[in-house]
Amino acid sequence: MKTNRRIFLGTTTLAAGAGILSSFSPDGNILPRYRPMGNGLKLTFRPYELQLRHVFTIASNSRTTTAVMLTELEWEGFTGYGEGSMPPYLGESHQTATKFLSALNLSQFKDPFRMEEILNYVDAVLPGNCAAKASVDIALHDLVGKLLNQSWYRIWGYSAENTPLTTFTIGIDKSAEVIAKTKEAAAFKILKIKIGGGNDEEMIKSVRSVTNVPLCVDVNQGWKDRQEALDKIHWLKEQGVVFVEQPMDKTNFEDNAWLTQHSPLPTIGDEAMQRVSDLEKLHGVYSGINCKLMKCTGMREAHKIIEMARSLKMKTLMGCMTETSCGTSAAAQLSPIVDWADLDGNLLISNDLFEGMKVVDGKVTLSDLPGIGIRPK
Amino acid sequence: MKTNRRIFLGTTTLAAGAGILSSFSPDGNILPRYRPMGNGLKLTFRPYELQLRHVFTIASNSRTTTAVMLTELEWEGFTGYGEGSMPPYLGESHQTATKFLSALNLSQFKDPFRMEEILNYVDAVLPGNCAAKASVDIALHDLVGKLLNQSWYRIWGYSAENTPLTTFTIGIDKSAEVIAKTKEAAAFKILKIKIGGGNDEEMIKSVRSVTNVPLCVDVNQGWKDRQEALDKIHWLKEQGVVFVEQPMDKTNFEDNAWLTQHSPLPTIGDEAMQRVSDLEKLHGVYSGINCKLMKCTGMREAHKIIEMARSLKMKTLMGCMTETSCGTSAAAQLSPIVDWADLDGNLLISNDLFEGMKVVDGKVTLSDLPGIGIRPK
Repeated sequence: MKTNRRIFLGTTTLAAGAGILSSFSPDGNILPRYRPMGNGLKLTFRPYELQLRHVFTIASNSRTTTAVMLTELEWEGFTGYGEGSMPPYLGESHQTATKFLSALNLSQFKDPFRMEEILNYVDAVLPGNCAAKASVDIALHDLVGKLLNQSWYRIWGYSAENTPLTTFTIGIDKSAEVIAKTKEAAAFKILKIKIGGGNDEEMIKSVRSVTNVPLCVDVNQGWKDRQEALDKIHWLKEQGVVFVEQPMDKTNFEDNAWLTQHSPLPTIGDEAMQRVSDLEKLHGVYSGINCKLMKCTGMREAHKIIEMARSLKMKTLMGCMTETSCGTSAAAQLSPIVDWADLDGNLLISNDLFEGMKVVDGKVTLSDLPGIGIRPK
Repeated sequence: MKTNRRIFLGTTTLAAGAGILSSFSPDGNILPRYRPMGNGLKLTFRPYELQLRHVFTIASNSRTTTAVMLTELEWEGFTGYGEGSMPPYLGESHQTATKFLSALNLSQFKDPFRMEEILNYVDAVLPGNCAAKASVDIALHDLVGKLLNQSWYRIWGYSAENTPLTTFTIGIDKSAEVIAKTKEAAAFKILKIKIGGGNDEEMIKSVRSVTNVPLCVDVNQGWKDRQEALDKIHWLKEQGVVFVEQPMDKTNFEDNAWLTQHSPLPTIGDEAMQRVSDLEKLHGVYSGINCKLMKCTGMREAHKIIEMARSLKMKTLMGCMTETSCGTSAAAQLSPIVDWADLDGNLLISNDLFEGMKVVDGKVTLSDLPGIGIRPK
């Protein structure tokens, strides 16, 4: 009892002015309770350029770097980390993200737990800017998770060992390079092959010349004719492919729906799927969806998307862009309940700044740290 | 620093064997982290009979008591409280709930944070038994919220002041009794009038003879002809009614959809809406849904239902049965994001056992306590 009292006095003194009300647990431990106080949230951000390990080619373009915005959200001595990743084809850049984040006034919010209100405000400031919005959402989740001293996968009630294998992505390239990259990816138990660039068969055959692991393919809207697409899917199934991502143009609901209806493999909408409001109209058009934090403004909406997709009995894939371990670790919090994960973004870069989720024996492996589960390297 | 060290030593000693890992917050406070240890969850339960303040009559029946099952879920010295309310027309009873809860083996779960896994297990043990399942779900939420030392509305990111007014329910009765009950309900800013019992006009006129507050009506499937129903809705709109609940038979999708399409007031599906899997097929049939913990197995599924309904742009009503403040306080955690609340269940009984959410100036008012926000009286 003496010890308890000492703890209590020490802590209440420390807590004065720190937004904390403490109470006792049944076994005498102190439970801190964070409450709104005078100080608002403090957002800082800085641009960063990710260096890709390999030139990255998909159906529409090639590149060697990815622009990201790194954020920090501070409150009462705690810091949450966030990231917005901005591949050029999505229209965001260091410039647009700087403009967006500079326009935010988060100091008006004295209580980080009011996530609905804070993130509705962020979403309403300007349209678009989804990656910049995600950089705030992720930092807020990291902050609140740290205040609760639990990882988000635990706050959401999921079990760490249910995480799936992650795919590792092999971009479109010539046969020799594809073979070399596939050999390098020997640690992965499932690969995602980018196709739709005119050499689909060569891509798959190159990969299959060195590995027998299950494959999935990402067409990135590259196919133009639905019958030809269906013929390819039948062939891909024979090659051990498990799903086909974004087979045709994202605006072509009719052909994608026809393909889904006839396809022997599940189809996954990616470019067609951004916000939770898209989900209803994609139901029936694709077998499932690829949810990425950078498309849907972050973890809060991603959680809604994944849970709603499951309620609609749609397949779920948790994806990412090229990102540091900050972005991929945030996405990984949702991975215990998805069918597939494509969380290799941090493995595709050479200048990661964080340590967090890892891939162990090909499986997404969550860190034990609170919030989004990262620490700066 | 000396104080910090003392706290740390004291706490780790206390924590040994208590499933707790502590760490420091930036300002020197101790953050407890609960971890799976040797001990499983311990469930206890007891039957209880709620005494209703008034004979309660809806379109289908009358009664003066409601059977409930009260649960407690213990883990590492913490106790979560739960309740299952079983109005007779839903088919559950003390007997069925005792059988169901006796069949559960929750001691196999060593970590209450694994809510998805625990509640999937509970749901799969037997079909039906939704109120009995809710009694476990609510106790688990209360327990986990206490371990996080936060209310669920805060863990979910909602803001307390956004709670709606609650309706107070006036059952079907003769004019004099309706007038007396309406006068008694003067503290409420919106009333729910049960109709569909053959005296609709008399019910509304009796209420309107003593109050001008907005009304909503609950037909409980009482209307049989859709054109007559539509005519009534037009008349009800003139009487200041804001929505119409379950106008026709729950299995009659066609007529309810026709009514929704033509109605000048929003329609709400109640008896038609149970589990999250029902939501998709009710989209287009009703303007919104009435979500009750006792129908959908508890807070976890209710959270999914309310968030999904919002994503589908459907109206949301958080309802309840006659319940102690345990059940209504659990439901109230979701009320900051719903359009309307019908959380008067604890006010309809004379032998409440808990103190929790209150109605202040007609508005749902959340308690500051962690978990579902209750304490035993």
